[in-house]
Amino acid sequence: MTWIKTGVTAARGFQASGVSCGIKRSRKPDLALVASDVPAAAAGTLTTNRVQAAPVLVSAARLKTGVAKAVLLNSGCANCLTGKPGLRDARALCRRLSQVASIPEAEILVASTGIIGRRLPVPRIVRAMPQLVKQLSPTGHREAAQAIMTTDTVRKEAAVEASIGGRRVAVGGMAKGAGMIMPGMATMLCVITTDASIERGVLDRMVRQAVEQTFNRISIDGDMSTNDTVFVLANGVSGVRVRAGSAQERAVSAMLREVMQRLALLIVKDGEGATRVARIEVVGARSEAEALACARQGANSALVQTMLAAADPNVGRIAAAAGASSAWFDQSRLEVRIDGRLVVSRGAVHPLGEAVAKKLLAPKEVTIQLHLHAGRGAAHMLTCDLTEDYVRLNARYTT
Amino acid sequence: MTWIKTGVTAARGFQASGVSCGIKRSRKPDLALVASDVPAAAAGTLTTNRVQAAPVLVSAARLKTGVAKAVLLNSGCANCLTGKPGLRDARALCRRLSQVASIPEAEILVASTGIIGRRLPVPRIVRAMPQLVKQLSPTGHREAAQAIMTTDTVRKEAAVEASIGGRRVAVGGMAKGAGMIMPGMATMLCVITTDASIERGVLDRMVRQAVEQTFNRISIDGDMSTNDTVFVLANGVSGVRVRAGSAQERAVSAMLREVMQRLALLIVKDGEGATRVARIEVVGARSEAEALACARQGANSALVQTMLAAADPNVGRIAAAAGASSAWFDQSRLEVRIDGRLVVSRGAVHPLGEAVAKKLLAPKEVTIQLHLHAGRGAAHMLTCDLTEDYVRLNARYTT
Repeated sequence: MTWIKTGVTAARGFQASGVSCGIKRSRKPDLALVASDVPAAAAGTLTTNRVQAAPVLVSAARLKTGVAKAVLLNSGCANCLTGKPGLRDARALCRRLSQVASIPEAEILVASTGIIGRRLPVPRIVRAMPQLVKQLSPTGHREAAQAIMTTDTVRKEAAVEASIGGRRVAVGGMAKGAGMIMPGMATMLCVITTDASIERGVLDRMVRQAVEQTFNRISIDGDMSTNDTVFVLANGVSGVRVRAGSAQERAVSAMLREVMQRLALLIVKDGEGATRVARIEVVGARSEAEALACARQGANSALVQTMLAAADPNVGRIAAAAGASSAWFDQSRLEVRIDGRLVVSRGAVHPLGEAVAKKLLAPKEVTIQLHLHAGRGAAHMLTCDLTEDYVRLNARYTT
Repeated sequence: MTWIKTGVTAARGFQASGVSCGIKRSRKPDLALVASDVPAAAAGTLTTNRVQAAPVLVSAARLKTGVAKAVLLNSGCANCLTGKPGLRDARALCRRLSQVASIPEAEILVASTGIIGRRLPVPRIVRAMPQLVKQLSPTGHREAAQAIMTTDTVRKEAAVEASIGGRRVAVGGMAKGAGMIMPGMATMLCVITTDASIERGVLDRMVRQAVEQTFNRISIDGDMSTNDTVFVLANGVSGVRVRAGSAQERAVSAMLREVMQRLALLIVKDGEGATRVARIEVVGARSEAEALACARQGANSALVQTMLAAADPNVGRIAAAAGASSAWFDQSRLEVRIDGRLVVSRGAVHPLGEAVAKKLLAPKEVTIQLHLHAGRGAAHMLTCDLTEDYVRLNARYTT
């Protein structure tokens, strides 16, 4: 498997485009399209929030058929908490795109991100559609990735290729993240494409497993969005067939996981206001579920996250967060390490010299490892620091 | 029941004192003592964190006897994650106080608050003990309340008195809060005294019920401390006996709840960096438990809390937080009100004029009400806003 510098158009038979249609006042790009030349198997994970945006409701119904040819995405407006008019808006966009691009309406998926509670400016989006379709290009990944950004400061793209049975297969994708990222659900907006040929049921399982190990292992602010969406389209153009349980499945699953993992890391690194990424690893829990609960509590702790911001190793906060989770352990056996250095053992904090303390959290990426000495369960989470900039960004998002 | 301007010495037969013994570098008061002239029935709730400070472990064992004459409290050092030496330190302090004040060691409760992972400066504390005991006074509530403050900006005291069967009964207390406050457990440091005579089993139940309705309904940062402690001492000096199920029990329970409620509100108002308090009320849930889960999710949501900081009613965030909780509801029936004004109904945000939007979150105390239209369960939480100052305070706490 090799990393390639492209994105959602890495796989053959996929094109993408991105334009500015005027949803954002800033006139930055805000409308993206990803399209397959042929109908593709489609699978996805959607937010588990009880409040679900109109595009999530529309796409959930369409994903049931398991076939899609295009994904229409917009930023600047979440089309959420917009009631029945919002549903009509989402469907109207699909209908119009169907006409402009000659794609069956049932094969169009939609996703929106941005401010909650505002209606989409449907006429503006409709006006931009011919241009959006015209600009579709096998090298259009960058424009599409740009057009789904909100408070993201960098484009998030990842792609890999591999030779499977002598044929080239690619998996590539794009994501948008920033705030409102929370574990335990389908996370943010993401579209991934592959030219492998994958039966819908197999694709569905592959996607769920990969999401669970990647996007569901990141946390920025512990909040859960109403619009979180991951779509994966497999159009089969490479001619490589992926059968359940085959070596091909293992190979393509690994590619899918790598692309998702890279996008997940990009999202955490670009967390709103974030300056530092921490990998919180828990080992020695009674079960994987308890290990994950413990890692999540640390990843979501405002006190751990502010500690990371200051790079001041107030390590008791890590132990306190672990103790607040549902994971059982005996505090007198707890061990905490930061980048390998023991900072808590036998339930007591190791005094660190000031010189050591200052350096400990200086790196931009740190690993915090907790050993609960209670069993063999292990899990990890990725998180970022909580800075004054997070508050500044989120206190002023709508204005 | 009448509010009186005093604190933990409101009830007869209790004295308190507070001194500076040098735990804090700032030389601010950091050692407090509350003592009853006669042995008192004692009950309490302690942190449910798996990591528990040494004073929590020591006090938990002593609370089992149900009798106490004194509570020794310090700020500036949590004596947590200090291993067996930390336990020895806590016991050494009790032993010394027992000698200086002629109180049986088993009747001394201890509580500490401050930085985790540092040993207590036992010699300094021991040196200050004679002075601490000498300064005990029936009007010493202020000095004691001052000495348990950490990042608190105001003293937290509350007291009420009432005439029960022609006799005066008082309930008074003090607390320290600020950061690391989280629902679902015993919260922060708090000592409450009363001169009612209450059998230990009855007192225990009264305390648990009152804590559940007050301190367990507040949230500042969703973190759970390792040192949270509420102690209630009833010395019977008033001669008023409180029997299980009696009118006296109802009266004293109401007083206890009022004092705890006032202290809880003071804690939220003084949350680290906080400028605004929100009461999040959930009605129409399938059960009280689901209503509480929903209210908690809102109270702990960084996006709701930053919205409160900016006073910018991005009301979709409230609905999104509700949807992320375990409470079931149909989003098309969700209603959200801010101070009575409908902002979300039938799953859609009501457009607010800019003038209205600006005023909506301007008050320093706001009520956010969610109606889930799914049943009759109701619950509330108190929370505060998340400001840049919270991050500033917590990023620099140990340095």
